[in-house]
Amino acid sequence: MKTTPSESAVFPRGDRAPAEYFTGTAWVQPLVPDSRMFNVVIGHVTFEAGARNNWHTHPGGQILLVTAGKGYYQEKGKPIQVIQKGDVIQIPADIVHWHGASHEQSMTHIAISTNTEKGIVAWLQRVTDEEYNRSN
Amino acid sequence: MKTTPSESAVFPRGDRAPAEYFTGTAWVQPLVPDSRMFNVVIGHVTFEAGARNNWHTHPGGQILLVTAGKGYYQEKGKPIQVIQKGDVIQIPADIVHWHGASHEQSMTHIAISTNTEKGIVAWLQRVTDEEYNRSN
Repeated sequence: MKTTPSESAVFPRGDRAPAEYFTGTAWVQPLVPDSRMFNVVIGHVTFEAGARNNWHTHPGGQILLVTAGKGYYQEKGKPIQVIQKGDVIQIPADIVHWHGASHEQSMTHIAISTNTEKGIVAWLQRVTDEEYNRSN
Repeated sequence: MKTTPSESAVFPRGDRAPAEYFTGTAWVQPLVPDSRMFNVVIGHVTFEAGARNNWHTHPGGQILLVTAGKGYYQEKGKPIQVIQKGDVIQIPADIVHWHGASHEQSMTHIAISTNTEKGIVAWLQRVTDEEYNRSN
């Protein structure tokens, strides 16, 4: 089974990410829906500069493959990490974290949620400007 | 946890794929090793024009995200499909298949083996030139 987009970037930008779970402008292109055949969900997410998702957890973990730009990743209680094109981020199950673009550059990643028979995501509170600006 | 390559392409080309399981020249860059934390294995594979892997199966399935070029994908008993940048291929568990570059162009994909608690890959016989040339 295959699906074929047609753009100059590898994957289309997709639709606006839901404002309830994202601050700023982000875009999501679903690539693989949840199924018991694969037990993963794959999406292509683009964060415009300054955009980030809420604090959240994944009951079965998630892996990020950063495909373009520069962004941030933070696990609760730890410093913000700068992430960029080519980085692979392994997020264990139930770790409270967020990810997004940097202040000055957009960031695009492929997100692979794993062990989705346990669930996909649990959304928490917004990442405030104060929290986001600690990356400076 | 993150790992950082440094190249102009998103991921490095990696090392030569094992000649035992590949015909022609292919390259593999491991991105995520197997673990019971995620139950996936992720690799970045580049096939030079004419290169392909052997017939094989995945006990837990595999998903291919084609990131560059043009190639072929075939399930046993079905016609060869042309695949290209932006295509997403979902390979169910235990389906005998192969993938590789086209005759004239290289092909690069991210390969996500899923449900790896059941195993990762079972290699079978080579894809002969006669089989490969049926794509013409």
